[in-house]
Amino acid sequence: MFLEVLSNSYWLIDLSIGEILKRMKIQTEDDWIAYLKKKTENHKKWNRALLIGDDGAVISQKSHKRMVLCSDTLVEGIHFDLNHISWKDLGWKSLAVNLSDIAAMGATPLGSLLNISTPKKYFGDHLKDFLHGYLKLSSDHKVSLLGGDTTGSPHSLFISVTVLGEVSPKKIKTRSMANPGDLICVTGPLGDSHAGLVIQSFKNESLSEGEFREAIHLSHRREDIPSLSSVIKKSLLSAHYRPIPRVEEGIWLGRQSSVTSMMDLSDGLAKDLTRLCHSSEVRAQIDGQQIPISKALKAFAQDCKKNPLELALFGGEDYELLFTCKEKSFSSLQLRFQKKFKKSLFALGKILPSKKQGPLLEWLHLSPNILAPKPFEHF
Amino acid sequence: MFLEVLSNSYWLIDLSIGEILKRMKIQTEDDWIAYLKKKTENHKKWNRALLIGDDGAVISQKSHKRMVLCSDTLVEGIHFDLNHISWKDLGWKSLAVNLSDIAAMGATPLGSLLNISTPKKYFGDHLKDFLHGYLKLSSDHKVSLLGGDTTGSPHSLFISVTVLGEVSPKKIKTRSMANPGDLICVTGPLGDSHAGLVIQSFKNESLSEGEFREAIHLSHRREDIPSLSSVIKKSLLSAHYRPIPRVEEGIWLGRQSSVTSMMDLSDGLAKDLTRLCHSSEVRAQIDGQQIPISKALKAFAQDCKKNPLELALFGGEDYELLFTCKEKSFSSLQLRFQKKFKKSLFALGKILPSKKQGPLLEWLHLSPNILAPKPFEHF
Repeated sequence: MFLEVLSNSYWLIDLSIGEILKRMKIQTEDDWIAYLKKKTENHKKWNRALLIGDDGAVISQKSHKRMVLCSDTLVEGIHFDLNHISWKDLGWKSLAVNLSDIAAMGATPLGSLLNISTPKKYFGDHLKDFLHGYLKLSSDHKVSLLGGDTTGSPHSLFISVTVLGEVSPKKIKTRSMANPGDLICVTGPLGDSHAGLVIQSFKNESLSEGEFREAIHLSHRREDIPSLSSVIKKSLLSAHYRPIPRVEEGIWLGRQSSVTSMMDLSDGLAKDLTRLCHSSEVRAQIDGQQIPISKALKAFAQDCKKNPLELALFGGEDYELLFTCKEKSFSSLQLRFQKKFKKSLFALGKILPSKKQGPLLEWLHLSPNILAPKPFEHF
Repeated sequence: MFLEVLSNSYWLIDLSIGEILKRMKIQTEDDWIAYLKKKTENHKKWNRALLIGDDGAVISQKSHKRMVLCSDTLVEGIHFDLNHISWKDLGWKSLAVNLSDIAAMGATPLGSLLNISTPKKYFGDHLKDFLHGYLKLSSDHKVSLLGGDTTGSPHSLFISVTVLGEVSPKKIKTRSMANPGDLICVTGPLGDSHAGLVIQSFKNESLSEGEFREAIHLSHRREDIPSLSSVIKKSLLSAHYRPIPRVEEGIWLGRQSSVTSMMDLSDGLAKDLTRLCHSSEVRAQIDGQQIPISKALKAFAQDCKKNPLELALFGGEDYELLFTCKEKSFSSLQLRFQKKFKKSLFALGKILPSKKQGPLLEWLHLSPNILAPKPFEHF
């Protein structure tokens, strides 16, 4: 833990902060800690309830709230390839995937712990860029960096982030409370992130193992390279490399009594909705025509001669929220959401009662061959 | 996060628990999650306040308590070598180093998140053994496994553990509250862990890079191989590979008003006490004759023709608690500690007022050449 150094006015080594910031080469752990400390000075003011400690971070909780803990690891060569993703985007995304989990619980994020294991070759400006992206998103949501751990690594970069949030017990939306008759909704269009990954993998000659497997998996071939406008490309790449966690939307949806269950979309609608159905002991009927697809994805799919629904159902890493709500309340919910967030909610299906046998997901208006591929797994 | 699967009665894949436990080969992430779920069924009863959730774990806090968060990463090839440490010990130690941080805050541990990134070659019984050690220590302290993340890894094994605990705000012992006149105390003898590492590194032909550097660093040479009794060897090896976090002692010391500051000893007394002095803006005087050395370490040092104090000051990974207390209260504290825990507390020096210049640590009864080496750094 470097908590003690983020929180107190001393240094592990006998260098003044001036000296360290002058050098700022980040060649040792102490350089990195000093840099972190300097860059997070303003974080204390965000959560007055937080008291940052020594061997651990100490957090005071508001009365009648519950703490929520989420943690995810990103591994070089498995989840990302540094030939493709920029260090700033990687920093952003490391926090974003965890904020998305917090959002799915309807919770307000308070602080994060950053554990980073770095091969020596990445010391220096790379780590500064990483932190730039990480702290940009921290600032956007006023999530204090509370501490964490820095270590070396023999080969690959490993990033493990834990986020702590809080929520009123009655506002927690689990996956297990969807009821037959509820509508199935999402907070945004799906599939853009995977399209961004495919574009990037074609842009570069070398594919990471993970990306290669994923591209193969969805049957994209090198000759499919799309000749899209740069605006569309940028939009799809951004969806993949700088996903926006739906934090405010999650808090708002958590407060709505008409919302019955919620989770985030990290592994694709098909896989994640199956999880929700398992958990709630229900089935789901999805209308392929109602699945929201962005204009950018439509253009991309046209160029690739692909069905955009394939990407929307199996692509993953969308980080939109998937939730269910009472059918009679949807119109009002949609209106109020539109007013508050200046964007749409989408209803794409209905929860059905469970059956003893048969698939959990039923599809309307969807070609059966789209359903053939299986979602990609990072393991 | 695999939280959702630990907490709910469903599976990501369509296998019954019976089928999975029959196979129990842990070849996929789903096998691992199923195995985790089975093995942690009893964890829910330990902390009734805990409500385990979906995208995140949800924890209710007792009123007037504070939450404490600690997180540490262990990296293959940096912190451990699987040729030396057993998988069970590795599981134990991954949790132990974090419980030690929680103990140093005077907090009661509630639950842990386990993020593990595994090369394919380690799937199977290795992971079961890892979990055996991890859950043995979890049981000893009734610390629920709340969830975490499992991913693949291209080369090395990475383990990142986060522990959540709680403490009354008035019982928190920071590093910054030591006062001139306070005694400097530890909860047990120092240096055994490093001696265990050295024994192991001689026992095996191949040293990990980290161990090799550390052995070289403290000037042990291969011809120093000690011919110790197996009881002594076992005791020293155990101190290194299965350290006991001082959880109950930390909670008890946190409650004593005479205890002014506390931290755990992970990087050696010399380095950690320097940190405490920096934080409290004081100096420290240590009496070399008062530093507690076990009989086993004395025997080891004699065989190696080494001064055991060198290991006690710079060896690291002791995971005893370092604390300061009011001088007049020490006798009473020591008596009550002895009565409660059936073992001794040791006072080994005194806090001094700060000076503008000069070293933070002063040594009595210590040969100057012992102070020459610098502590080893994992980065």
